[in-house]
Amino acid sequence: MAKQIILGIDPGTRITGYGVIDSDQSPIDFGCIKPPPKLELAKRYLILFESVEALIEKYEPTAVAVESQFVLKNAQSAIKLGMAKGMVYLAAAKKGIPVYEFAPKQAKLAVVGNGSASKYQVQKMIQALLRLPQPPQPEDAADALALAICCVHHMRTECLSQSKVS
Amino acid sequence: MAKQIILGIDPGTRITGYGVIDSDQSPIDFGCIKPPPKLELAKRYLILFESVEALIEKYEPTAVAVESQFVLKNAQSAIKLGMAKGMVYLAAAKKGIPVYEFAPKQAKLAVVGNGSASKYQVQKMIQALLRLPQPPQPEDAADALALAICCVHHMRTECLSQSKVS
Repeated sequence: MAKQIILGIDPGTRITGYGVIDSDQSPIDFGCIKPPPKLELAKRYLILFESVEALIEKYEPTAVAVESQFVLKNAQSAIKLGMAKGMVYLAAAKKGIPVYEFAPKQAKLAVVGNGSASKYQVQKMIQALLRLPQPPQPEDAADALALAICCVHHMRTECLSQSKVS
Repeated sequence: MAKQIILGIDPGTRITGYGVIDSDQSPIDFGCIKPPPKLELAKRYLILFESVEALIEKYEPTAVAVESQFVLKNAQSAIKLGMAKGMVYLAAAKKGIPVYEFAPKQAKLAVVGNGSASKYQVQKMIQALLRLPQPPQPEDAADALALAICCVHHMRTECLSQSKVS
């Protein structure tokens, strides 16, 4: 497999985690996008979109991995989460980069080998896998790195085509 | 009130209705955006985003009115609807145009005077209000025109600030 750059994104309405790794599981960057919470909704999404666009511009990922959510407490929070997710899809689509979705369980399974692993276990395993000096913080960035790792595993096992959302 | 151009949008995952009117309730344009259903998700959202951008470019609206939904059958459909809605918010935010949300009931109330009006009643009243030769079709375009009319009513009664989403 030729070397690939994976951008994992854990989209959220308040905070969006991101993690960039290559297909050798070397960490490149991670962190989070946090538009000012008091800003009006439309401007917060604009900041999120432009930040994801900037990450794509900077790291030129070959794939984007986002979290898929199936259970949410109410329609309003699901719609807002969808709006955040839409920013990631659009930024990727503008550059023709494929987007893959993984459920939180899949990401945990890829990182820890257990779909019910705790947040702390995930962070510790990411630290080990990516040879980081400490567990990645905040949680959202760790989740994004887990998605990127999960995506690399799927690429390796050539299962990616099955997970591709269409 | 200086003349305003209102772009009403009824976002959907398969079909997005739009309607453009001015604040004198003169119709300017209406129709729908329907990305090829077999296209992958990211590309469908890209088409939706670019179409809304093109409408904004063409008609230079002073406000965008979208439908707010509070009840949906499942998280997946709510997230997909949110992604579509995100495209509208982003296109508006890029041009600094305010986005207002109205519930379907509010739109029906503004057009028919009855929040529980049928789709047909809404279409007939829009035809009368906008002096159209026939009821607007398809339904999604009619819903978008209803949102635009609702937005004009709110502007007139100076209630707009209360409906502004932040």
